[in-house]
Amino acid sequence: SRSIRLASIPGDGIGPEVVAQGLKVLSAVLPQDVKLETESFDLGARRWHATGETLPDAELAALAEYDAILLGAIGDPSVPSGVLERGLLLKLRFAFDHYVNLRPSRLFPGTDTPLAGRPDIDFVVVREGTEGPYTGNGGSLRTGTPAEVATEVSVNTAYGVERVVRDAYERAQARPRRKLTLVHKNNVLVHAGRLWKDTFDRVGAEYPGVTTDYLHVDAATIFLTTQPERFDVIVTDNLFGDILTDLAASVSGGIGLAASGNINPAGAFPSMFEPVHGSAPDIAGTGRADPTATVLSVALLLRHLGYAAQAARVEEAVEADLAARGAARRTTDEIGDALAARVSG
Amino acid sequence: SRSIRLASIPGDGIGPEVVAQGLKVLSAVLPQDVKLETESFDLGARRWHATGETLPDAELAALAEYDAILLGAIGDPSVPSGVLERGLLLKLRFAFDHYVNLRPSRLFPGTDTPLAGRPDIDFVVVREGTEGPYTGNGGSLRTGTPAEVATEVSVNTAYGVERVVRDAYERAQARPRRKLTLVHKNNVLVHAGRLWKDTFDRVGAEYPGVTTDYLHVDAATIFLTTQPERFDVIVTDNLFGDILTDLAASVSGGIGLAASGNINPAGAFPSMFEPVHGSAPDIAGTGRADPTATVLSVALLLRHLGYAAQAARVEEAVEADLAARGAARRTTDEIGDALAARVSG
Ligand SMILES: CC(C)[C@H](C(=O)O)[C@@H](O)C(=O)O
Ligand SMILES: CC(C)[C@H](C(=O)O)[C@@H](O)C(=O)O
Repeated sequence: SRSIRLASIPGDGIGPEVVAQGLKVLSAVLPQDVKLETESFDLGARRWHATGETLPDAELAALAEYDAILLGAIGDPSVPSGVLERGLLLKLRFAFDHYVNLRPSRLFPGTDTPLAGRPDIDFVVVREGTEGPYTGNGGSLRTGTPAEVATEVSVNTAYGVERVVRDAYERAQARPRRKLTLVHKNNVLVHAGRLWKDTFDRVGAEYPGVTTDYLHVDAATIFLTTQPERFDVIVTDNLFGDILTDLAASVSGGIGLAASGNINPAGAFPSMFEPVHGSAPDIAGTGRADPTATVLSVALLLRHLGYAAQAARVEEAVEADLAARGAARRTTDEIGDALAARVSG
Repeated sequence: SRSIRLASIPGDGIGPEVVAQGLKVLSAVLPQDVKLETESFDLGARRWHATGETLPDAELAALAEYDAILLGAIGDPSVPSGVLERGLLLKLRFAFDHYVNLRPSRLFPGTDTPLAGRPDIDFVVVREGTEGPYTGNGGSLRTGTPAEVATEVSVNTAYGVERVVRDAYERAQARPRRKLTLVHKNNVLVHAGRLWKDTFDRVGAEYPGVTTDYLHVDAATIFLTTQPERFDVIVTDNLFGDILTDLAASVSGGIGLAASGNINPAGAFPSMFEPVHGSAPDIAGTGRADPTATVLSVALLLRHLGYAAQAARVEEAVEADLAARGAARRTTDEIGDALAARVSG
């Protein structure tokens, strides 16, 4: 009989509330014969305040033994900026070689968009997750003086770019529209830009069925607001992907619905699934957090682990729930219950 | 009697067409006693194809003698990406120390926006223009091989950050809402981010009347689409400013209306004014280019040279013209004529 060993990192703010709903829906959708074992890891702001630890080696090693990780949200205003982001979230992405940061955007019926005319939005961003300006390379000289110089180094390797570009072509080829857009800024960032563009063109020769396009990142923001329907799969670097996926979330139902997977495609390490939103400390504990982004992240988790039918059931449940949402505000728990009922129904 | 010595760089594609209208409106709005001398510099794709030159030293030295520069657009698909951008446009911004890249966004009545509900948009982005990831620092190792490493280095100095942050505070203080938002990504780019945030806080102590705010660049894209009215003045680095101002242009009437000034506030070098849009080779020569962004850039030029009343006249003319625009399509020349008539009327 099959089993899933799942580590959860509920984290801070609304993290624990939304993770609870994600786990509820996961339990409800799994076939009876699949044994689900979950363990929760206490990491985040509370832990850091209590012990000064962000992610001890022993816990990193323990996490490596799971099939997947479900993360709620990390961060609190009481912790200096960067400590948890770099010491925990990015550490996990880098240690577990999550080079595909997968972020789908779809404008579901019944949801809000700031765009007039509700364009037809259904694309996925393949954001590189282990290189670029996120490596922590850089430093400062004469720090805090009027003569300070601070640098940040974007590191891009042929190895790192090729594997994510290849993954994006595979995804594009498996979708009906078969279109892949590279987003970069190769007219200014000429070294990294050349590596990305050359790799994109060279690998593309192996995928003759995929239509390709290139956009500078600044122009991409225009198209995301004026013609989002032109996108199918986007592949881009770590920082551009960060920016574009928040914008993509905004135009396609809001950050409360945006799911993501930090994926190690080969499965050498557990992949990690998390809503794109943050810990929202202002609404923590009020029952107002929408768990939908976490539930959609559970769908990505299911698909990654080979439960494609269950992933589709979760996505259909979300779609039906959103379409049926009235004006009445439901609590986090009520939304989780409704989704769990739909997937088991 | 007063005089303005203006260098124009019409450039490529629709550049010459829109610059002609900008000069027409400039002549029409200037008081009789101001002598306007203009000289056109032949730089851009045509020149590069003919001679291989982007911006020879002699022409850079000649340009330095002018009071200001009006640039149309640079770039053509026939020129490899980066050649003209770095060899001409960025070379001018860096050589003339244009550390304030000023980009106002305003949603004028009568214009299109992709946003539902036409929010009230009236803010200005102060984009750093001489540092960050735009310095050309970086390189590649084992280029073109499977073992390639390509880097891009963002260089940020206390000197460079403080002067642009100070300029932004001055601009915020002079506006009715007196609000300044710093946009960066200081939870990931911790070295540059700390320098920017510390400088922002320290200089802010000198401007107690200015309300301040900080946003990560990814979150800023959300607010630009959902609550653009929250922004008054934004200060940010060169790359984030590039991205945010295209998005800002998109939501506030489109790239066809977005003006910019590359400003050296102290006046040691000529400042350069240019529409944010590109050379649009697809519509070059058809008379369909909208010269409005160039005319609004002329307003920024006038204000920079001390002709505030004339700058306001140009902006009012644009506002009135946009409000009166019907469904009938006018040519580039007709729009220029209409604006020239309004400012001289
Ligand atoms: C919290 C932060 C480090 C993170 C990122 O920049 O990747 C977040 O914005 C995201 O998109 O997951
Ligand atoms: C053409 C390019 C180099 C330029 C930039 O990135 O600054 C343009 O996008 C702009 O915003 O003026």
